Amino acid sequence: MAYRTTPQRLDRDQQLRQHILGCALQRVVQGGFAALTMQALAEDAGIATGSLYRHFANKGELSAEVFALASQREIDALGAVLQGPGSPAERLRDGLRLFAARAWHSRRLAFALIAEPVEEAVDHQRLRYRQAYAGLFEQLLEQGRAAGQFHYPALRITAACLVGAIAEALVGPLAPHQEHPRADAQLALLSHSVSHFCLSALGADLSILESQS
Amino acid sequence: MAYRTTPQRLDRDQQLRQHILGCALQRVVQGGFAALTMQALAEDAGIATGSLYRHFANKGELSAEVFALASQREIDALGAVLQGPGSPAERLRDGLRLFAARAWHSRRLAFALIAEPVEEAVDHQRLRYRQAYAGLFEQLLEQGRAAGQFHYPALRITAACLVGAIAEALVGPLAPHQEHPRADAQLALLSHSVSHFCLSALGADLSILESQS
Repeated sequence: MAYRTTPQRLDRDQQLRQHILGCALQRVVQGGFAALTMQALAEDAGIATGSLYRHFANKGELSAEVFALASQREIDALGAVLQGPGSPAERLRDGLRLFAARAWHSRRLAFALIAEPVEEAVDHQRLRYRQAYAGLFEQLLEQGRAAGQFHYPALRITAACLVGAIAEALVGPLAPHQEHPRADAQLALLSHSVSHFCLSALGADLSILESQS
Repeated sequence: MAYRTTPQRLDRDQQLRQHILGCALQRVVQGGFAALTMQALAEDAGIATGSLYRHFANKGELSAEVFALASQREIDALGAVLQGPGSPAERLRDGLRLFAARAWHSRRLAFALIAEPVEEAVDHQRLRYRQAYAGLFEQLLEQGRAAGQFHYPALRITAACLVGAIAEALVGPLAPHQEHPRADAQLALLSHSVSHFCLSALGADLSILESQS
């Protein structure tokens, strides 16, 4: 019988692809992109390495998809807060707290997404997702200016400054080789310092840093 | 006669190595790391590709050295201003103006250093040089706090925020595929916006933005 691409077969392919991506994400959560080898992944997924290559041409392509999957989750989580209830300044404060806490509690993944040296294909995704983060902040900045809470000379440049400041502040504390205390107090200081920096940069009222979200 | 490594030979090797690095830097200035191929470089340097590999094991190693060479120049230029005369806030303002202007006038190189998708070996250098930038800002932040000009909760996190904000703000305007006006007015807006963001973030007096350096 001739080989045919039936709807059932496409479904199974799609399911297997999702299964592989899920296993790949787990490897990155545990050990960053350095831990994502095709052979180890095939073992995790319970398939032959050859089958793996039928779904992903190479490690770069696979890594780029895992990067997109994980980054989209972060974007969605942050977006829900930035576009949620509260004043623009409160939403920025709460979004930064959430972002820092998520990174802190999944620091190997966060470092992998923000700064781990990776293949070019993943660097391309990094640039693309940083644009997506900037887009979220642009919306909030416009709302904050309209509400008289934020003050800045140029929208896009300011959004980029926010994205960069937040990402870079997390790189050091998250670096896997870094010796650092893992106490909650450290997260509180990180979160407070980044929020203080960003809210000050926008000329926002800092008194909201003292109140709970 | 047996081959011997004489001092003269070491000198010549060193000179050839510097010549190759100079040619490689020129390629990156013109077209980023994407334009740095071993074959084209050998032609530029007027040597055989085989000789090139005697000095640099692969493109990653070569790129990493070019990255270090170019980054060190930027660090030195910025450091001279940040550690020069003037109050801490004035030095920050002037340093940011210089940094933005240097990037603006050599934008292909600046994008290559800050954000071009590259080999892992170059990403490692990026992390290292961002530490060096953070070190420069830490010194300045301490002086600014001592002078009562800067206000921030945590030194290292704040220095990282500055590094990230500045680098990210430049990524968009410098991206080689980006359609953007190249007018001097654009540089002035970029420079002003980044300075405004950073000085505000530190609680510094913004009136110095109106005066000339």
